Amino acid sequence: MQFSILKTDSRSKARYGEIETSHGIVKTPVFMPVGTQATVKALTPAQLLDMGTEAIICNAYHLSLRPGEQVVKAHGGLHRFMGWDRTIVTDSGGFQVFSLKNVARVSEEGVEFASPFAGERVFFSPERVIDIQRALGSDIMMPFDHCVPYPCEWDGAKEAMLRTERWTRRCVDALSGENPGGQALFGIVQGSVFKDLRLESVKRTVEMELDGYAVGGLSVGEGKHLMKEVLDYTIECLPWDKPRYLMGVGRPEDIVDAVAKGVDMFDCVLPTRNGRNGAAFVRGGKIRLFNSAYREDQRPLDSDCDCYTCRTFSRAYLRHLFFAGEILAMTLVSLHNVHFFQELMSDARGAILSGTFGRFKDGLLEAEDKGGQ
Amino acid sequence: MQFSILKTDSRSKARYGEIETSHGIVKTPVFMPVGTQATVKALTPAQLLDMGTEAIICNAYHLSLRPGEQVVKAHGGLHRFMGWDRTIVTDSGGFQVFSLKNVARVSEEGVEFASPFAGERVFFSPERVIDIQRALGSDIMMPFDHCVPYPCEWDGAKEAMLRTERWTRRCVDALSGENPGGQALFGIVQGSVFKDLRLESVKRTVEMELDGYAVGGLSVGEGKHLMKEVLDYTIECLPWDKPRYLMGVGRPEDIVDAVAKGVDMFDCVLPTRNGRNGAAFVRGGKIRLFNSAYREDQRPLDSDCDCYTCRTFSRAYLRHLFFAGEILAMTLVSLHNVHFFQELMSDARGAILSGTFGRFKDGLLEAEDKGGQ
Repeated sequence: MQFSILKTDSRSKARYGEIETSHGIVKTPVFMPVGTQATVKALTPAQLLDMGTEAIICNAYHLSLRPGEQVVKAHGGLHRFMGWDRTIVTDSGGFQVFSLKNVARVSEEGVEFASPFAGERVFFSPERVIDIQRALGSDIMMPFDHCVPYPCEWDGAKEAMLRTERWTRRCVDALSGENPGGQALFGIVQGSVFKDLRLESVKRTVEMELDGYAVGGLSVGEGKHLMKEVLDYTIECLPWDKPRYLMGVGRPEDIVDAVAKGVDMFDCVLPTRNGRNGAAFVRGGKIRLFNSAYREDQRPLDSDCDCYTCRTFSRAYLRHLFFAGEILAMTLVSLHNVHFFQELMSDARGAILSGTFGRFKDGLLEAEDKGGQ
Repeated sequence: MQFSILKTDSRSKARYGEIETSHGIVKTPVFMPVGTQATVKALTPAQLLDMGTEAIICNAYHLSLRPGEQVVKAHGGLHRFMGWDRTIVTDSGGFQVFSLKNVARVSEEGVEFASPFAGERVFFSPERVIDIQRALGSDIMMPFDHCVPYPCEWDGAKEAMLRTERWTRRCVDALSGENPGGQALFGIVQGSVFKDLRLESVKRTVEMELDGYAVGGLSVGEGKHLMKEVLDYTIECLPWDKPRYLMGVGRPEDIVDAVAKGVDMFDCVLPTRNGRNGAAFVRGGKIRLFNSAYREDQRPLDSDCDCYTCRTFSRAYLRHLFFAGEILAMTLVSLHNVHFFQELMSDARGAILSGTFGRFKDGLLEAEDKGGQ
């Protein structure tokens, strides 16, 4: 994996770059649609490509339980299995495992839990998580991290942060020697909302000289302002020349704000989840299609949008599909929403390249304020 | 609407033709995917076009209740509303209205029933059904017919058949004078499984000199053999030079059999309904993806099929999507199934054109027998 920074913004820390994996170039800042179960919900790979998607993120935890990583491996890996020949990042599933109600036991060795399907005991460790991701053949792997909820005591956050470091070292060891697929491994910075822990986590993680650095444990309920504060001091300490990935974020305004702080990679379920619930992203807010205001509205979701949905269908039609319980409703609005996020990133990259990122950011945040999100 | 028969089969009554509507040419025999609620379930219009779909059928009854035909009309009609600029047939909804549990009153004037949504009283008459279809702007309209279930007494079947005739005349009257959109009106032959009633229905319907003739009230539980028998004597009596439409049929073998009898048009929910339930059509049978046999099956649904699904995904992947409850599963298998039906029709047309229809039909029925559906 190669990362090149091709242009930096003079008035902020934003940068335009390219990540090169064995499945192509990913222009950054990038938004990665979430394909947890080896599908970006309700969309075909062809539709994702059409929108300019260059990378998606799948989940090692989910795929190891179903269909099982060996089924995927037998297909020649996740790219072939899901028909996506561009870059794939796999999250380890740390976040999911620690969110489970039925976690039986967390030890230094790993986490034991009951499978949500058949109920059998499953054991996840750093080594196991690397094995799974090797079998999946993703381009960028994430280590097994210990996520804490918000709010969290300092002591607990410290313990989880230190465990994340030790587990990451075990991931590095598990990988050492052979890496024929050239799979990259990122580190994940934890530490909840505590500055000393975050900085300590950055220091310990960066020591491992990984391919990129993710900020985990944000957007978990701490609120916009606390998130920005943590990001400010955390991102600043990460190496300049490696990709920085803000996991699970998020809203357009949060993304653009984080781009200004120097974040390169994002993923979030918002565009697809909102799409399935009838909420369409437009500049400055959302259109909630169940609202009766759209019953006879012949306009597209966004008259400036050139996605298939906006070129073809009206708000009234989409609203009709939702009321009729039609699957196509979810597909069409997910498509528009993912397109919206891809355009947002494309505009952000264009603004960085042309030296107008500051204006772009101000314009977007102003529109969001007016929209009264 | 124009209908031209361009080639007839020498060994059967099959014919190759073209229906020209103001939305293009429809090559016959044609299979029309069902888009009851102004969407062919789980598929985009772009996907339907890709598969060579030239006509679909929507439902006046459903669309008048939701979103209301005036909403559709305000969009400039159903083509614009649903983003489909090829031919649209609208069924009147007779079949649906008479299937309702809450039909309050059937009179010579029409049918009164409670809306399944808000419960308010709704009145459907031949005139109302034409009004709805005029507002929708479909290319081919169907009259309001009185459908009877199977089995049905001769007396009841006769009454419904005669009422269908009188209602069709009222549809013709309602249309007379002005028809700026050039919308065609078909007749519907009823009479259950009684030969005398069917022949009487044909005679009375054909007298009205309509644009085409449909056979209604079949595939409602009478079984394959009785259906074939009724079709045999009914189709034979219909005018040679008008399109013949077998409503709601059906299975590949039934379609090919009916093509041999001289039927030109078909519609059926099978490809999309089966697609949503995980059953994929292949020559000679179906693949039921929930079956554990496909857990690790890396083959496409059909290795001879060139649809997007078969070019891109394995049976194991599709099975995984169904088990994961993913929407994409329904889209991909519906897509394959509709493509399967379109290829079936394309092959049937090609066989008629090249004088090999008999062999084509025998080969298909033999494969179906072997597949042991």
